[in-house]
Amino acid sequence: MKNFTLIGSGLVGSLLSIYLAKRGYNVTVYERRPDLRKNRISAGRSINLALSDRGWAGLAGVGIVDEIKKVAIPMTGRMMHSKDGKLTYQAYGKEGQAINSVSRGGLNCVLMDLAEKHGVKIHFNKRCTHIDLKTAVAHFEDNVTKEIVEVSADRVFSTDGAFSAGRLQMQLSTDLFTYSQTYLEHGYKELTIPPTASGEFAMEPNALHIWPRDSYMLIALPNLDKSFTCTLFFPFDGETSFKTINSEEKALEFFKTNFADFVPLIPNLEKEFFTNPTSSLMTVRCYPWRYQDKFLMVGDSAHGIVPFYGQGMNCGFEDCVVLDKMMDKYGEDWDTIFEEFQKSRKPDSDAIAQLALDNFVEMRDRVGKPSFLLQKKIENWFSEKHPDKWIPLYTMVTYSPHIRYSEAYREGQKQESIMQQVMNIPDIENKWNSPEVEEKIISLLEYFK
Amino acid sequence: MKNFTLIGSGLVGSLLSIYLAKRGYNVTVYERRPDLRKNRISAGRSINLALSDRGWAGLAGVGIVDEIKKVAIPMTGRMMHSKDGKLTYQAYGKEGQAINSVSRGGLNCVLMDLAEKHGVKIHFNKRCTHIDLKTAVAHFEDNVTKEIVEVSADRVFSTDGAFSAGRLQMQLSTDLFTYSQTYLEHGYKELTIPPTASGEFAMEPNALHIWPRDSYMLIALPNLDKSFTCTLFFPFDGETSFKTINSEEKALEFFKTNFADFVPLIPNLEKEFFTNPTSSLMTVRCYPWRYQDKFLMVGDSAHGIVPFYGQGMNCGFEDCVVLDKMMDKYGEDWDTIFEEFQKSRKPDSDAIAQLALDNFVEMRDRVGKPSFLLQKKIENWFSEKHPDKWIPLYTMVTYSPHIRYSEAYREGQKQESIMQQVMNIPDIENKWNSPEVEEKIISLLEYFK
Repeated sequence: MKNFTLIGSGLVGSLLSIYLAKRGYNVTVYERRPDLRKNRISAGRSINLALSDRGWAGLAGVGIVDEIKKVAIPMTGRMMHSKDGKLTYQAYGKEGQAINSVSRGGLNCVLMDLAEKHGVKIHFNKRCTHIDLKTAVAHFEDNVTKEIVEVSADRVFSTDGAFSAGRLQMQLSTDLFTYSQTYLEHGYKELTIPPTASGEFAMEPNALHIWPRDSYMLIALPNLDKSFTCTLFFPFDGETSFKTINSEEKALEFFKTNFADFVPLIPNLEKEFFTNPTSSLMTVRCYPWRYQDKFLMVGDSAHGIVPFYGQGMNCGFEDCVVLDKMMDKYGEDWDTIFEEFQKSRKPDSDAIAQLALDNFVEMRDRVGKPSFLLQKKIENWFSEKHPDKWIPLYTMVTYSPHIRYSEAYREGQKQESIMQQVMNIPDIENKWNSPEVEEKIISLLEYFK
Repeated sequence: MKNFTLIGSGLVGSLLSIYLAKRGYNVTVYERRPDLRKNRISAGRSINLALSDRGWAGLAGVGIVDEIKKVAIPMTGRMMHSKDGKLTYQAYGKEGQAINSVSRGGLNCVLMDLAEKHGVKIHFNKRCTHIDLKTAVAHFEDNVTKEIVEVSADRVFSTDGAFSAGRLQMQLSTDLFTYSQTYLEHGYKELTIPPTASGEFAMEPNALHIWPRDSYMLIALPNLDKSFTCTLFFPFDGETSFKTINSEEKALEFFKTNFADFVPLIPNLEKEFFTNPTSSLMTVRCYPWRYQDKFLMVGDSAHGIVPFYGQGMNCGFEDCVVLDKMMDKYGEDWDTIFEEFQKSRKPDSDAIAQLALDNFVEMRDRVGKPSFLLQKKIENWFSEKHPDKWIPLYTMVTYSPHIRYSEAYREGQKQESIMQQVMNIPDIENKWNSPEVEEKIISLLEYFK
């Protein structure tokens, strides 16, 4: 029986540990934080994620789709809130397609419970301080006793997220390691809309709410307890920024001016604004992801992305599915498993990293514009008439796990070029569903083939 | 009197320590390596650098231009060696302009001696293990005793090169730190041509020798002891690469086929090829370079570049000159000094990083082609007729410290666009110095204004 060390029992680490344990490997996970399951109540804020088909595929492999479906809230579309409080709804896909708001903590707990059921051992409060990549010996320091344990294994998986200790070890002790970390000029701050006095959702629960404001935006996702977790994505610096909104008065004034319909939903909004932290948004790209057959990075550790396509967790879960397929294919040839895994996933993770960056502009700016709504209407109309010729980009990324992110990205670039020409057709507002437009798109598709 | 800690007594650290000491600051330098001056003879290989006008400006500020001129070998141009041994010479600039081969170790020793003369204290064998950026407290571990000293100062300068401990601290303990490290697919290996049996240079000493071979190249710079330090820049992987040349027979065969005139100059070439290490070529970009008024990166620590424009040291020395000007301008306002320094130098270091990458293609591929030689001939002819309108890119970068790297880069891009059009003029080989060509360039310069 082979011994595997996993660093990090977050979403990807816990899921991967189950995949490995199911194959009969002896898996031990070391987690920097305390056991989430013992501190659930004190966790305070309820953070949620948008689970979609690539994520479901990951959960399907360990048989917990039905269990998670029970605690997920389907969001069938975007609900845009204009400055004057007008609501516009735009479906995320066809009838029956939805992304799902799930609690990050809740899902993580379910996965850790299941991992332990499969014999995975999880040690908490153990911070990784060093990995000998050649020998797969990892050192962990106990947060409380400061004692250091030295763990030998056949290989080490680094599933410790965007600020990965495993990746740092690759940077420090290997040559030819390509690495970049870049930050957006926007940070984010979370705010919570509680249930109403009568214990109901304060807004439509089956939608992802967006307040697009060109250079910044606010979004809200529903929670099971009928609250909403809201996130303001906002510049750190500049005229209107976290820097200039430096008093409760200015904060309230800012929200009243720009998010008038939002203000009544949060009691003491201006207090919460200064209580909650401001966090940054990082993209991490690196390569290689493995060291020989001893060490492999999976999930955010290998490819940290910004949250604007709701694909961070989904991409990490897909990593597990792809790695599982490689294990099917190559048995115990770990050198090939690791090599084929990184070669296969690198272009896909690069693609979703770029799509997530691009989608920030779409969400905060374009979705609020009539021309964008018309463009999406035309795409949906054409796609329904010619499903073999056109799958909207959002559908490819979110509902089509058989299409690779890198293919979706290329196809999306082509679609955008075509739609730019279509939107330039005179009087497009009135003839958007005419044979002329249909033929134009068909001929452009031929041209771009 | 203010106390400053410098990490690293390399070329930039030693020079900066003198600039600071001359202003009356109390400067202490901690260097990871042993004292170079005590181990000079055992250093073995003689490594040289191309010192040019930005570097001289840095040395002028501490008054050692004449001293260094005595130990520098001027290289007035490139000497290209074709596959069949034909030599082609191309001047690097006008009469009297030259880049200068100097010994890295020799120059470093002179700078350390001078630093100590100015009261700088240098501690050797001290590896930086941690910096508290907020308080400017740095920890150093002694390589021999393993004892850790804790050093308090008013500020810390990180002059510890491309693999900087200071930069790593910025990455680990600050938010919003943009960082990238990228490697070329080529590595390099140094080889030495000894003096001839009669004690003379084996080739023309006042030139930088290049054997351009499209996808790789060999270069040689003269040393004072009449040897040449040669560097092979060569792919790590692929059909013809460090990987495939894996025996002394293959190495000798490779050199005989591709560098026939070089082979007789090195006894036991095939042995030396496997004795000497293969190193990688990294570009590092990051920002910010400072933490408040407590910490600043200078030189390769802030901007590691590849060596193909011979500007790494020159750029680092120019950093010292610019920082010195900021100290003149802003007195003891270190917050402003650090901010203005990084804002000013970032675009310039980005420009030289890109120019250095571009110049690899020029050196290994373009310089061997007749069309390139003709293009440079036209540029030089036009530049001599219109020195107010055209300064060749190489001259701007190498001999014009009053022109910023970023300006040189922009101007160079413009010149390249113009020359592409000029080279397309039919029969340009015969009318390269005609009024037609002259007028064409003048009109294109107007167009690109």
